[in-house]
Amino acid sequence: MIGSELDAFRVTREPYYQPVGDEVAVFEAAYAARLPVMLKGPTGCGKTRFVEHMAWRLGRPLVTIACHEDMSAADLAGRFLLEPGGTVWQDGPLTRAVRHGGICYLDEIVEARQDTTVVIHPLTDARRVLPLDRRNELVAAHPDFQLVISYNPGYQSAVKDLKESTKQRFLAIDFGYPAASVEAEIVAREAEIDHDLALRLVDVAARSRNLRGHGLAEGASTRMLIHAGRLAGGGVPLAAAIRSAIVLPITDDPDLREALQSAVSACLQ
Amino acid sequence: MIGSELDAFRVTREPYYQPVGDEVAVFEAAYAARLPVMLKGPTGCGKTRFVEHMAWRLGRPLVTIACHEDMSAADLAGRFLLEPGGTVWQDGPLTRAVRHGGICYLDEIVEARQDTTVVIHPLTDARRVLPLDRRNELVAAHPDFQLVISYNPGYQSAVKDLKESTKQRFLAIDFGYPAASVEAEIVAREAEIDHDLALRLVDVAARSRNLRGHGLAEGASTRMLIHAGRLAGGGVPLAAAIRSAIVLPITDDPDLREALQSAVSACLQ
Amino acid sequence: MIGSELDAFRVTREPYYQPVGDEVAVFEAAYAARLPVMLKGPTGCGKTRFVEHMAWRLGRPLVTIACHEDMSAADLAGRFLLEPGGTVWQDGPLTRAVRHGGICYLDEIVEARQDTTVVIHPLTDARRVLPLDRRNELVAAHPDFQLVISYNPGYQSAVKDLKESTKQRFLAIDFGYPAASVEAEIVAREAEIDHDLALRLVDVAARSRNLRGHGLAEGASTRMLIHAGRLAGGGVPLAAAIRSAIVLPITDDPDLREALQSAVSACLQ
Amino acid sequence: MIGSELDAFRVTREPYYQPVGDEVAVFEAAYAARLPVMLKGPTGCGKTRFVEHMAWRLGRPLVTIACHEDMSAADLAGRFLLEPGGTVWQDGPLTRAVRHGGICYLDEIVEARQDTTVVIHPLTDARRVLPLDRRNELVAAHPDFQLVISYNPGYQSAVKDLKESTKQRFLAIDFGYPAASVEAEIVAREAEIDHDLALRLVDVAARSRNLRGHGLAEGASTRMLIHAGRLAGGGVPLAAAIRSAIVLPITDDPDLREALQSAVSACLQ
Amino acid sequence: MIGSELDAFRVTREPYYQPVGDEVAVFEAAYAARLPVMLKGPTGCGKTRFVEHMAWRLGRPLVTIACHEDMSAADLAGRFLLEPGGTVWQDGPLTRAVRHGGICYLDEIVEARQDTTVVIHPLTDARRVLPLDRRNELVAAHPDFQLVISYNPGYQSAVKDLKESTKQRFLAIDFGYPAASVEAEIVAREAEIDHDLALRLVDVAARSRNLRGHGLAEGASTRMLIHAGRLAGGGVPLAAAIRSAIVLPITDDPDLREALQSAVSACLQ
Amino acid sequence: MIGSELDAFRVTREPYYQPVGDEVAVFEAAYAARLPVMLKGPTGCGKTRFVEHMAWRLGRPLVTIACHEDMSAADLAGRFLLEPGGTVWQDGPLTRAVRHGGICYLDEIVEARQDTTVVIHPLTDARRVLPLDRRNELVAAHPDFQLVISYNPGYQSAVKDLKESTKQRFLAIDFGYPAASVEAEIVAREAEIDHDLALRLVDVAARSRNLRGHGLAEGASTRMLIHAGRLAGGGVPLAAAIRSAIVLPITDDPDLREALQSAVSACLQ
Repeated sequence: MIGSELDAFRVTREPYYQPVGDEVAVFEAAYAARLPVMLKGPTGCGKTRFVEHMAWRLGRPLVTIACHEDMSAADLAGRFLLEPGGTVWQDGPLTRAVRHGGICYLDEIVEARQDTTVVIHPLTDARRVLPLDRRNELVAAHPDFQLVISYNPGYQSAVKDLKESTKQRFLAIDFGYPAASVEAEIVAREAEIDHDLALRLVDVAARSRNLRGHGLAEGASTRMLIHAGRLAGGGVPLAAAIRSAIVLPITDDPDLREALQSAVSACLQ
Repeated sequence: MIGSELDAFRVTREPYYQPVGDEVAVFEAAYAARLPVMLKGPTGCGKTRFVEHMAWRLGRPLVTIACHEDMSAADLAGRFLLEPGGTVWQDGPLTRAVRHGGICYLDEIVEARQDTTVVIHPLTDARRVLPLDRRNELVAAHPDFQLVISYNPGYQSAVKDLKESTKQRFLAIDFGYPAASVEAEIVAREAEIDHDLALRLVDVAARSRNLRGHGLAEGASTRMLIHAGRLAGGGVPLAAAIRSAIVLPITDDPDLREALQSAVSACLQ
Repeated sequence: MIGSELDAFRVTREPYYQPVGDEVAVFEAAYAARLPVMLKGPTGCGKTRFVEHMAWRLGRPLVTIACHEDMSAADLAGRFLLEPGGTVWQDGPLTRAVRHGGICYLDEIVEARQDTTVVIHPLTDARRVLPLDRRNELVAAHPDFQLVISYNPGYQSAVKDLKESTKQRFLAIDFGYPAASVEAEIVAREAEIDHDLALRLVDVAARSRNLRGHGLAEGASTRMLIHAGRLAGGGVPLAAAIRSAIVLPITDDPDLREALQSAVSACLQ
Repeated sequence: MIGSELDAFRVTREPYYQPVGDEVAVFEAAYAARLPVMLKGPTGCGKTRFVEHMAWRLGRPLVTIACHEDMSAADLAGRFLLEPGGTVWQDGPLTRAVRHGGICYLDEIVEARQDTTVVIHPLTDARRVLPLDRRNELVAAHPDFQLVISYNPGYQSAVKDLKESTKQRFLAIDFGYPAASVEAEIVAREAEIDHDLALRLVDVAARSRNLRGHGLAEGASTRMLIHAGRLAGGGVPLAAAIRSAIVLPITDDPDLREALQSAVSACLQ
Repeated sequence: MIGSELDAFRVTREPYYQPVGDEVAVFEAAYAARLPVMLKGPTGCGKTRFVEHMAWRLGRPLVTIACHEDMSAADLAGRFLLEPGGTVWQDGPLTRAVRHGGICYLDEIVEARQDTTVVIHPLTDARRVLPLDRRNELVAAHPDFQLVISYNPGYQSAVKDLKESTKQRFLAIDFGYPAASVEAEIVAREAEIDHDLALRLVDVAARSRNLRGHGLAEGASTRMLIHAGRLAGGGVPLAAAIRSAIVLPITDDPDLREALQSAVSACLQ
Repeated sequence: MIGSELDAFRVTREPYYQPVGDEVAVFEAAYAARLPVMLKGPTGCGKTRFVEHMAWRLGRPLVTIACHEDMSAADLAGRFLLEPGGTVWQDGPLTRAVRHGGICYLDEIVEARQDTTVVIHPLTDARRVLPLDRRNELVAAHPDFQLVISYNPGYQSAVKDLKESTKQRFLAIDFGYPAASVEAEIVAREAEIDHDLALRLVDVAARSRNLRGHGLAEGASTRMLIHAGRLAGGGVPLAAAIRSAIVLPITDDPDLREALQSAVSACLQ
């Protein structure tokens, strides 16, 4: 039974998630063995949604932390605050998940500074402890605690990459864009539009994804299709909706915009 | 109904705004679906004025934050202040907008450090939450909250650009300079000068914009025309007004200044 | 009427200033329209003296801030200080000028970090406000408030330059060295020497300015001539005075020193 | 007899450790002479497990510190905390081990900043003292104190390496992957699978280690084999278990993944 | 009359100083006109001694500040300290000299960060004020206040140099090594050795100075000769004294050491 | 007579030190004249031992400070601590030695930041003062105070070197490895082994030192020989002891290890 500390982090409604492979089974086996998991894949393909779904499925609170380059180990583990009676220790979000048995999800872990990755090491092997040096405390992980991180292979560079000694501590699950029919189902449901319109948007996405590596850093994500669908559903003409939700955000290069735009026009005919 | 926290941020008088396309409709549809919006365009073309106009139109308070490279996530989200009774949490401007249902406008978002862009991620998807880790609070966005950012494509470089995972979260609206007659109307109205004089200033601007890419980083903005108009209206000879408001600020290169100056002289004949 | 906050910053005696063009008229028109002004020109040519003169002429207190690369927005806007009863907000020099209606002069603005330039943006357009985010306050500028910045075009580089979106917000006034007779009058008056001696010093300056670009970063400024005049007036032989006030400070390169020295000798014959 | 300060750091159950050479004897002799020890070897080969085993064997508490580039000397030695009665000194983890006679294990010492390595120098020669300058205290090491560091030669670069004056202060023990039969025994025991399955996993590891230097930074560690074994033991098909535990974490390069995958398939036939 | 704040900084005994040109007269004229002075010259040639001598001669307290790259404007101007009754302002050493009329000597000014040089600008022109922005105070300089800086032209580089707008604010006095007979007199007096021995040391120095630019960064300074003289006077054989005081400190290059050593041997024959 | 502040820093037992030249006499003469001393030489050759011996010989307390790149001037000079009655000044280790007459030994001074070297300048010339600007105090050095620094010429680079103006302030004493018979005596005594075994270890060291510059950064230090001797004395076979104490710590390069190992084998036959 979990204390009330994490009650705000419970996922109370089932998040819609459409499986595309054996990812649910692998995650459940990993959780059963309490092995840490790394979700790999491009932006907007559903990694966050998946971990929310699994948290709901396993009945665990979910503490999500978006990593960034100014995040320090103290932002994760906790710090002393000055109170009238002196300094008082405040657990950070990771420590709360460790102590009270939540799933802790570190989104885009490579963005964080190296001290962040080092602080999670003793949580990912047989020790399952979190040392709070400043507090002289060794927190043994709650039996239900689970660590999940995400990682976008397209972003990494020599400067910013996980250390080998970190990578080898995680099981990995690969994510990609779903098959067209599955993606259309997701878009239709999330944007509250009909399946045909969703299929046309998925077609647009497919064409944009073909431009990846030809000037585009990434193609349109499922998320962008949902945006276009919602704008269209809200009364904006389809072409204008696609322009606002997909073409304009994805690139500022006039040639690429033209290429994208004519691909879009072809789909809309 | 919105609490008094944001009363100072209400736009009480209608800001003059001259639409140039379907930007008002797209923004209204985006607001109806609570999708975050990115305004793209060069400096001084009216992005700030547009968002003020929309805030007035939608009856929402507007919290504007000019981003810069030393701005941290705490500047947006809030921090603990030391008070006699210990530390007291103070909401940052973003948190106030999130809690009380304002429109939060992050001007020139790419200037900010990466932790700033990461902090807005959970506000831009289905979750619509702002995690305040230091306070152990998950702020659910007020139903009226809306996020708007601006972005000047001319400024970006490899070092300073939005991450793909940020870009894909926003609808985009493109801004450019208005058509000559529209721009003259704006200048005449704002500088309180007659339409003919305004048209001559717009003519000067058009010539300066042709020099863009030939040494000039940007041409004269609508704002500069208004400045020149107000100086001239205040009794400064037109040539001197244009020199002070347009030629001298825009470049220090002697050749470019000469080219600009002769273009101006041609207009003034 | 202005509160006593800025009394220490009133310019009580008329600072001597010799106009060289229409700069006084342009500044007065700019002030009448409350348009922000940028003073451009090389070091030691009288920009600071000019703004002091205008402050005296317009009867406004003058708050001068010398910008540098470690200056942050808080140094301008203000910060919380720890007092017995908790933290107390202290207005920074810019905020004082904004609130109480002074002229705020940011000397060598490009030296400051970017957050400094961003903080002045909302003061330079129709809004005329200064947002104090940490205090949750939006300070409306006093009707008499005026913003002036200085800028030395000779110093800028790709790394350190004003952003286009800052430049376009200011009217500009160009400064250069005054004509010889005017400069001699200034030197004679400031160094309390006779006009003939002043003219000989101006002649020395002219020769040093010809060496600009041939190894010298800048020629002798009017300020240096006044220094030489005061030393000579204090009994130091003229050649030694010129050496200490002009030749030795301006360069350490033996060849340039020799070239300068022989130019000086020619003047002194 | 050791004070209760380090009781939480006692290793109460014997950690399973399979010796591969004379490392136990060398460590015991080093401990008898209180000479500091450096463990060298690649990630996941059992250095941490070895030091836990030795701490158990010698009956000493073990204080493990994972070094990182933001770790400062104060993180090791201690700092002043603000308490109601003023500042109070808090020993850091190194100081606790020094004072109370534990084994202090600095994992991946080169990751730490240089001040960290300098702080341990006086502990590694005849002086055996830890100077706490901020506290004006010279802590004489407890007779039972021992210092151990780890070092992965594969990671070092010109920028990040131990100084010669640090290296020469430590005895060194080399670690590598164990022989196949020994490794299988370890995997079988740790993953609770049968020896045959373990041997097949060791075979997979051997093939991945052959790819080291041909694109792979490191081959599969013993730790990864245990992960695969536990997933398989939990019901995941063996090929999927190996894919999640070894192939996907180790590389994102499509060609390397294919090479690895076919090596795996060969083993599984 | 000067307050007791600077009493500890009075130069009570006449510092021995042997003039080598008109530097005393120029400094006195500069002080009479309160013009700031820059002392230029290589290390160990007597700049610090000169300013101490002038402070004694003019009867002014001397506040010396050795600049370094981590020195900030607050180190010069002052800062708030936390006291039981809240924060209390503490004047920095520059502010004390400005308020109470001392000579402030900024040694090796280019080493300091740029904000330090900017803070002294308003003290070096007609304004003679020091703005303490954090305290909202404009300190008018005491009539006796004088600013002196030192500058070693041999050290400057493109990265670390005074800005033109700083250089032009100072009179300059050049320093070099004194003539041989003068230098011998100084050495004899300071090391308490006889004139002949001093002359031999000056001879050694001359030869080392000839090696400047041939591998040596600088030749032996007068200071080093005094060191050698004092060692010799204390019973160390002359050759060993020269070796310890001059040869070994000046270079680690074996060839240069040999060249220096044979030059020394020649002098000692 | 020295106050109790430095009692903990007295060297109470004579540290064994075997002189190799006139270093003891030179140091005593330097101390008699209170001239600062710089000890130059490679790692592990006895500089620290020498200064401890001299402190014992002269009956002075010894304050040793290991410099590192994050050490600031405040770490040496002192800082304000927050106490119930407000901030309280705490002398740093250098200030304690200056005030109470100890020998202050700054080990590897070049590692420290530049502000550290600047803070010691006024202590190394006729002034013998330590300015504590933050406390507005000028500490006159105790008559017995002496400053000693160490410097390893093999480590310096263009980036990290003492400034000429620092070097010229110190007498220098050179250190190297002792002659074989002397070194064997030291090793036999310190490792408590017989002279023959010590001689064999010295022979190993000599061969390793010949590899310096052929891939090895430095040869085996005397310290390493003592380590090997103590391991061998503790029962580890001689070859294994040399391997752990010398071969493995000194290099990770397989070829160099083999070269070293065969040199060792030759010695052991």
